[in-house]
Amino acid sequence: MRKRRWGALLTVAMIGSVTLTGAAVAADDAELLAQARQLFKPLPQIAVSPENPVTPAKVRLGRMLFFDPRFSSDGSVSCVRCHLPALYGTDGLPKSIGVGGRMEPRHAPTVLNSALQVAAHWRGDRASVEDQAMRSFGQPDQASAIAKIKTIQSYRLLFEQAFPGEKDPVTSENWGKAIGAFERTLQTPAPFDAFLNGDTGALSREAKAGLQEFAGAGCAVCHNGVGVGGGMFQRFGMIEDYWKATGSKEIDKGRFDVTKREADLYVFKVPSLRNVAMTPPYFHDGSVASLPETVQIMGRVQLNKALSDEQVARILAFLQSLTGSLPPDFASAPVLPPAAFK
Amino acid sequence: MRKRRWGALLTVAMIGSVTLTGAAVAADDAELLAQARQLFKPLPQIAVSPENPVTPAKVRLGRMLFFDPRFSSDGSVSCVRCHLPALYGTDGLPKSIGVGGRMEPRHAPTVLNSALQVAAHWRGDRASVEDQAMRSFGQPDQASAIAKIKTIQSYRLLFEQAFPGEKDPVTSENWGKAIGAFERTLQTPAPFDAFLNGDTGALSREAKAGLQEFAGAGCAVCHNGVGVGGGMFQRFGMIEDYWKATGSKEIDKGRFDVTKREADLYVFKVPSLRNVAMTPPYFHDGSVASLPETVQIMGRVQLNKALSDEQVARILAFLQSLTGSLPPDFASAPVLPPAAFK
Repeated sequence: MRKRRWGALLTVAMIGSVTLTGAAVAADDAELLAQARQLFKPLPQIAVSPENPVTPAKVRLGRMLFFDPRFSSDGSVSCVRCHLPALYGTDGLPKSIGVGGRMEPRHAPTVLNSALQVAAHWRGDRASVEDQAMRSFGQPDQASAIAKIKTIQSYRLLFEQAFPGEKDPVTSENWGKAIGAFERTLQTPAPFDAFLNGDTGALSREAKAGLQEFAGAGCAVCHNGVGVGGGMFQRFGMIEDYWKATGSKEIDKGRFDVTKREADLYVFKVPSLRNVAMTPPYFHDGSVASLPETVQIMGRVQLNKALSDEQVARILAFLQSLTGSLPPDFASAPVLPPAAFK
Repeated sequence: MRKRRWGALLTVAMIGSVTLTGAAVAADDAELLAQARQLFKPLPQIAVSPENPVTPAKVRLGRMLFFDPRFSSDGSVSCVRCHLPALYGTDGLPKSIGVGGRMEPRHAPTVLNSALQVAAHWRGDRASVEDQAMRSFGQPDQASAIAKIKTIQSYRLLFEQAFPGEKDPVTSENWGKAIGAFERTLQTPAPFDAFLNGDTGALSREAKAGLQEFAGAGCAVCHNGVGVGGGMFQRFGMIEDYWKATGSKEIDKGRFDVTKREADLYVFKVPSLRNVAMTPPYFHDGSVASLPETVQIMGRVQLNKALSDEQVARILAFLQSLTGSLPPDFASAPVLPPAAFK
């Protein structure tokens, strides 16, 4: 296994709350593990939230609502439209297609492990998974969507059970809380988590070399923490304009369009790399379909590095160790109460 | 339990290959069972086809293709778009919404148990589930869809395994055969099948009374056989124009538009009633959402009967005994090979 210095870039770049130990060279598995634990955390079983405690009743309701298209304006779009279980919670499209065939402005990232992130949406303009779900619900006519839900007795009962004591529990806020609670259970522990939890045999030799490469090259400056990303915002294109490398058709100004602050120009949420090998295409506009090409572009526009094919191959081996199993309650659809609307 | 004569209507109406025993009154469960066996058949485990033998390799591939949206013209429409597992293989819409938000001309019936039917589509203009899948595939540019599939190595391998010995197995015909083979496994044995197989306790007292009512009222003239429907074509509106009862917005001439034969005016495939309680709305245009109302309309426009609420309730109890469990390989999505297209 090649040994590389981890610290070089980290010391000159923003690393959030992450700190490195003084010894930058991993002499063996134990040392590699100790260093990795400085940068990354294993997934919890549930992404807990003080604002929205995860209860079985909320999860049960949220799972049904997640799969139910009938309360969208044309009756055909559920959360599953853009977050297909068969495609690891994505839709495989550069940009998603919503009600009326309308193209969404950005690529739909996977819903898996999304609840642990700093915010929702590429520009962080949704505070949480609950906020994202609530504000997507039944647009543009939430009152009509709520009225539809209320005609279905078993849904009324499920809302009452999920939000006990509330006089009128069928609300868009509770819709968001129920779906958010379900999403908080969609965690996909991977071989890398087993490694972080002490099973150093869970990663192949190549994946371990890739982890070294990933950290040493500086990828973990931003892609760190429990999500291996998802924990901060960062400018896309530190070294050169991103669109020159990605071939993006449009120049998206990112978080700038939300905050109007100059510092947020071309700033996006750093995507979580969990399940990245299963969720092409990549970037906020899905402009690149190949993961090796994506890794090379990131080296070029963020780190000013021309990564060799060998380096990319090692990093890919590490990224593949971030693929977990689909949660059974996500892979499998619940049976929804029968009802139809005109 | 009320006893009713079964034969009255059957003797004056088309009954296909179905014959009744002389004794028209079921004196007890055994007699009810014997009579039911004259009209209905339990589901086989697989809907076999001499033209398309069901093999594990075809089913495995077909299941993946069924769930994969990436080969449609806009990359967003798989079979699952209109045949959602969560809604028992339907989409809950009066008429489905396809690529580009385009409304389909008719209601999407469930894909469950569909392979046993006389033909596919409401007007029977698809010969089989294979024909239906093949002709839906990748429209309007099948060549481009095939080219996309071929870029994914694991799909190429799966096609080779499913169609051994073929030089170029990735074809629209084999797409149809693979999906057809998967659909031939989507059988949902229900309490009524257990009854037909001899377990007379599998039906409640109400369901048994409903079975008597169903046959006695004449419903089984058309809704018979293994699908409790799905086995023949029939004019919708024997007694009066269907649209006066259903409130249909358009007058669909049914099979007439396919064959141009006067005898086919307003003729549609008799829908299978398996899982009918789980699959609203009803009729070829989804014009009625309520099952009790649907039963009443059928009595009125097909049988010239004003069914009482009591009669309808009994028939509903029988119809509920036609609800089976979702096949696990349908409820649960397969993991698709990662790949994305521009």
